[in-house]
Amino acid sequence: MDFDSLFQAQIDTLKHEGNYRVFAELERKCGKFPRAASHGAEGVQDVTVWCSNDYLGMGQNPKVIDAMCEAVQRTGTGAGGTRNISGTNHDHLLLEAELADLHGKEAALLFTSGYVSNWAALSTLGSRLKDCVILSDAGNHASMIEGIRHSRATKILWKHNDVADLEAKLQVLPADVPKIIAFESVYSMDGDICPMREIVELAEKYGAMTYLDEVHAVGLYGPRGGGISEREGLADRITLIEGTLGKAFGVVGGYITGSAPLCDFIRSFASGFIFTTALPPAVATAARCSIAHLKQSSWERMQQRRQVANLRARLDAAGIPHMANDSHIIPVLIKDPVKTKMLADTLMRDWGIYVQPINYPTVPKGTERLRFTPSPLHTDADIDYLMSALIMLWKQCAISRAVA
Amino acid sequence: MDFDSLFQAQIDTLKHEGNYRVFAELERKCGKFPRAASHGAEGVQDVTVWCSNDYLGMGQNPKVIDAMCEAVQRTGTGAGGTRNISGTNHDHLLLEAELADLHGKEAALLFTSGYVSNWAALSTLGSRLKDCVILSDAGNHASMIEGIRHSRATKILWKHNDVADLEAKLQVLPADVPKIIAFESVYSMDGDICPMREIVELAEKYGAMTYLDEVHAVGLYGPRGGGISEREGLADRITLIEGTLGKAFGVVGGYITGSAPLCDFIRSFASGFIFTTALPPAVATAARCSIAHLKQSSWERMQQRRQVANLRARLDAAGIPHMANDSHIIPVLIKDPVKTKMLADTLMRDWGIYVQPINYPTVPKGTERLRFTPSPLHTDADIDYLMSALIMLWKQCAISRAVA
Repeated sequence: MDFDSLFQAQIDTLKHEGNYRVFAELERKCGKFPRAASHGAEGVQDVTVWCSNDYLGMGQNPKVIDAMCEAVQRTGTGAGGTRNISGTNHDHLLLEAELADLHGKEAALLFTSGYVSNWAALSTLGSRLKDCVILSDAGNHASMIEGIRHSRATKILWKHNDVADLEAKLQVLPADVPKIIAFESVYSMDGDICPMREIVELAEKYGAMTYLDEVHAVGLYGPRGGGISEREGLADRITLIEGTLGKAFGVVGGYITGSAPLCDFIRSFASGFIFTTALPPAVATAARCSIAHLKQSSWERMQQRRQVANLRARLDAAGIPHMANDSHIIPVLIKDPVKTKMLADTLMRDWGIYVQPINYPTVPKGTERLRFTPSPLHTDADIDYLMSALIMLWKQCAISRAVA
Repeated sequence: MDFDSLFQAQIDTLKHEGNYRVFAELERKCGKFPRAASHGAEGVQDVTVWCSNDYLGMGQNPKVIDAMCEAVQRTGTGAGGTRNISGTNHDHLLLEAELADLHGKEAALLFTSGYVSNWAALSTLGSRLKDCVILSDAGNHASMIEGIRHSRATKILWKHNDVADLEAKLQVLPADVPKIIAFESVYSMDGDICPMREIVELAEKYGAMTYLDEVHAVGLYGPRGGGISEREGLADRITLIEGTLGKAFGVVGGYITGSAPLCDFIRSFASGFIFTTALPPAVATAARCSIAHLKQSSWERMQQRRQVANLRARLDAAGIPHMANDSHIIPVLIKDPVKTKMLADTLMRDWGIYVQPINYPTVPKGTERLRFTPSPLHTDADIDYLMSALIMLWKQCAISRAVA
């Protein structure tokens, strides 16, 4: 059987739809973020990155870099085993204590990624809590969807951020069935924020546990970077808070926090936690340093907020529509995968501006977009330059529409 | 609903069975491997680690450490995004080229862990190849089992390493159904090696693709560390070779290698690849350095083999039974979770010897064991000392059996 032809046929379909992905090949340059070198067909080019999830530029924070190098020199480059078989290092436990403190929880558990933390925790909860029903927001991330699917628990989708619909779904479930409400605080692609208080109140009313993904919020919201749940004073009423070390904290890895029995339960039964090599102690140390810094320092958050507001205002002034939301994520809908890619290619080639075209399956077909994430390290001049490019391109598009 | 009680009840069951896991809390000390500090109830103690999967001690190789620190200084501590959205770095592509070369394949694809590479690749293959049947060795790793389960493809188990059984299962399948034979080269807990040539020949006879997990073999076998498939000259006849950067290579991460269409297919469709932050460029750089070193240097492999043979001979001389196999893994069966833990606790407390008790679900109930993995850095004196401890403990056990 010619397997390569089978693979190629499905790739060709993607290409035909305009959904085939070409990764931009970057060289991050420490100390110069958001600047990077981009390797393209025509050689290497300096670019400004406008779509990074290193939201605060912590990946180049000198303290975090020093912490990582110090720990590499002290402990080596890897953990040497799974958490159970020689892979647990003192540095992992220090990080877990830091994370529990960040969210005001009893305990925390570290995973190799945010994806794995969602997948492993939800699949374990859903499969081991007898007759469990998971009420999942329709906008939840792929890692949550796959975890719920893997658990084979009953899944009930509720309309995105719609608490009336959530309550309607809760009302009809028997009182003695374990219920998990799974949702996110900041949704990554639209940048909208959930009605957390109402969800928590419904959970309490109907005896459900709450599973909250804060990956696009930790480090960014709340006085110590504890996320939207900290900002709203709701963390102690949420059963499980999940987060990442790979976005605002600038490193890599994922985690959950919650009660000691909850974390011990996931630790003891989750295949995706048990059967995998632990993160290098140096990664844990770097992440801990970054979290500790953002607990103390609000400069990054304030300056990011300023530049987000700045870019939004400039887009409004130029008449370039963007999705309204209360977060740091600025989506500009183009609604066609081929056009989105063409715009992004032009920005990269002619202007040295890198913003990845976002297409299916990351967003639904017909909602393709450019997604801008201003950081505290984007200057006013960077915004001026980006706006010159966008205004020029939007004019050209208007002309091409007019003559079409 | 009191969720904590539900969690605690299942934890209590584990404790009652003797299967509750307590992680040893280590401090790896760069340059001193296999020595580490162990944090226990009675304070910090120096121990010798006998169960690490940093099989060759590459996690403290000075070149690998320098490569990682250099890359942290140059690129920062994280990748800053998914591979699609600003997370692909030049260093990732260099590593993928190194991995493709290691296995003599057209292409390679990097994942955040070996677990994720198996889970994501198998779940994508099984779900997207229409009517696909996966023939899975009964001894396969949890990550492969979960990937196959997640794919919802038809799964046929064949008896562990039994090619007659595999052929019987292949014979009855229609010729036009896509078949994947999924197996490992070195099985981690028994240390046995698959009959690779016979499996490959069956795959060719029945038109199946081969999915080979080499995580406990890469770096360790073959003249350049390409695994058992390199040693046997079979790599070019295997469709997909999967491996890890977290064991013999001493860092963290996983990968697959194969044809360009195969890797592009997984790259384009695997949720666990698409929706997760890329590994830090510095991790990729360290791994590449380690692989390149072990392509050139055989000293680590030779010295490890010497110490493995040495320990086996000493166990034989002392009459301590261990499982026969042709690999670097020496399992000593105890067959009871409580006794295994008691032995391991005594070795740690009284002798400063750390070997993790291996229990369910890592191995079947009733096959609990101590699993020794001698490295090139364990000295003859380390083996003498280990043997003194084991001989003493085995004597005490014999006495306690005699008086019981």
